[in-house]
Amino acid sequence: MHLHFLPLLSRVAVCGGTHGNEMSGIYLVKELLKARKKVMEDEEEKPVSVMLVLSNPRAVQQCRRYIDTDLNRCFTHATLSGPMSDTTPYEIIRSRELNTMLGPKGSPGAVDLVCDLHNTTANMGLCLISYSDCDWICLHIFRHLQRQMPDVPLRYIHFDVSNKESYSLDSVGKHGFAMEIGPQPHGVVRSNVYTAMKAGVQHMLDWVSFFNSGNVSEGGFVDVFTMVKRFDYPRDSETHDITAAVHPQLQDRDFCLLHPEDPLFQTFSGETLRYKGKEPLYPFFINECAYYEKGIALSLARKRRVMIPIHKMGRGN
Amino acid sequence: MHLHFLPLLSRVAVCGGTHGNEMSGIYLVKELLKARKKVMEDEEEKPVSVMLVLSNPRAVQQCRRYIDTDLNRCFTHATLSGPMSDTTPYEIIRSRELNTMLGPKGSPGAVDLVCDLHNTTANMGLCLISYSDCDWICLHIFRHLQRQMPDVPLRYIHFDVSNKESYSLDSVGKHGFAMEIGPQPHGVVRSNVYTAMKAGVQHMLDWVSFFNSGNVSEGGFVDVFTMVKRFDYPRDSETHDITAAVHPQLQDRDFCLLHPEDPLFQTFSGETLRYKGKEPLYPFFINECAYYEKGIALSLARKRRVMIPIHKMGRGN
Repeated sequence: MHLHFLPLLSRVAVCGGTHGNEMSGIYLVKELLKARKKVMEDEEEKPVSVMLVLSNPRAVQQCRRYIDTDLNRCFTHATLSGPMSDTTPYEIIRSRELNTMLGPKGSPGAVDLVCDLHNTTANMGLCLISYSDCDWICLHIFRHLQRQMPDVPLRYIHFDVSNKESYSLDSVGKHGFAMEIGPQPHGVVRSNVYTAMKAGVQHMLDWVSFFNSGNVSEGGFVDVFTMVKRFDYPRDSETHDITAAVHPQLQDRDFCLLHPEDPLFQTFSGETLRYKGKEPLYPFFINECAYYEKGIALSLARKRRVMIPIHKMGRGN
Repeated sequence: MHLHFLPLLSRVAVCGGTHGNEMSGIYLVKELLKARKKVMEDEEEKPVSVMLVLSNPRAVQQCRRYIDTDLNRCFTHATLSGPMSDTTPYEIIRSRELNTMLGPKGSPGAVDLVCDLHNTTANMGLCLISYSDCDWICLHIFRHLQRQMPDVPLRYIHFDVSNKESYSLDSVGKHGFAMEIGPQPHGVVRSNVYTAMKAGVQHMLDWVSFFNSGNVSEGGFVDVFTMVKRFDYPRDSETHDITAAVHPQLQDRDFCLLHPEDPLFQTFSGETLRYKGKEPLYPFFINECAYYEKGIALSLARKRRVMIPIHKMGRGN
């Protein structure tokens, strides 16, 4: 295999509390800030600059996903450069502050890598979510985590959205991904989920240091889940209330292949509704709390194998 | 054994949405209202009057526990008869409406039985929570549910609080209990939890009909868990932030005996904190989402066996 080159990652941002009730990232960022204070008192050298960011402090304080609107949908170029007024939602104002701090998005001044920490109520294990299936930095990090954390189910999710449409905080960096871990109820900290996230972030930073030091990052195959479809809950046409829950045979079975005619929902009166698609697909974000209001009961993905080339830091390409 | 008598239960209330983000009770009450509409169109006779109540409609609409204050703490005699003004919290106003509808609390006009539906993020199975360990109506219903639902873990929890201090909606009825089911994240419906609650309510109403028809309800022994102690999370003295999560070895182990020196918390830096009590006790409400703000990480109970006498509807005592 040919050796390819990728540029130095000198500035990394680790963000928590982009959603103010997703507790692992909030407490992890606070803990890392505390630890840094101690380390700085010991005057240790830093091989890479790591910014620690609490993204939505007002939502964190109120333990809500957001105050006015979902911050993690505010990072499109259009929203970041739209008009401002006295009635501009808090999160739109905050998204510009974050874009100044970590970006500007799409500019040479943007940080090299954004890792944005999230939780889900779905049984998804640890997922990296990215807008690209050929961002080798994200994919090498994913592979490193898979090797270092054999006891944690790890998946790479690809949202096939153009750079113009990309809307989340991690899109502000030159490279970026969301680290999404579940299941955990929003507003709750589960120790095992916190510990997995802490390990994931540490392994990610270790890989960045390893790469920056000029080491070769081995290539290899990984599975990439590309989102292709979403389903809403069945709803009452008048009240818009949901009329069914995710079927007990589907609940918690994220990333287990869903076949045509498999149970999808169970109505509140007890009836089973089935998957009517023609193609077997992989469900994920099954019954995620925050997606009721977005009209998403589950997402479906196609899986494909991606070959990561061997890379080394340098000026080659 | 002697046969004892208990009065007819002619008016029963089933309440959901006392907490606006505990979804099973909300969708169950809505579903029962729909079914009733159909039944009424069929002009069926009703042996017992069942009121179906959505307790906190504004909180339900916003999918929040409450708007201004926790409705399920507003039913003390003091709060129900306190002064009112323009700034009275919504839930205090609503508690009086409910007291008029279902009470007045402590009066002969109060409904005979209130069953208030709740969810918890804790792994508690189905619990009946009551202020009395000798309310035979509640205990007979509990025993009936235990027999009818052998696959669901069922417990009876006793909060040893005087009638004067009792604060929850179910205290408005002559008899009353909360039906608490978990684990389920707040804001989420899990089909299995919904189905268990639906079965629990149906079996409860079946028992009431059976009892009202003059049948003998057999006595027997049941375990009662009486709450004796609560622990808060360890917190930072300045920020009041929690500094530890429930220990992974304790998480999800509700009603498994906790012994002195067993792990209680794991700090965010990785340290284990242990249970320093002298007496082994039964933990429950472990890591309940809504109790972070109340300063409760878990509750502890003593278990004892209670003998339920044989009862029959009548005027005996």
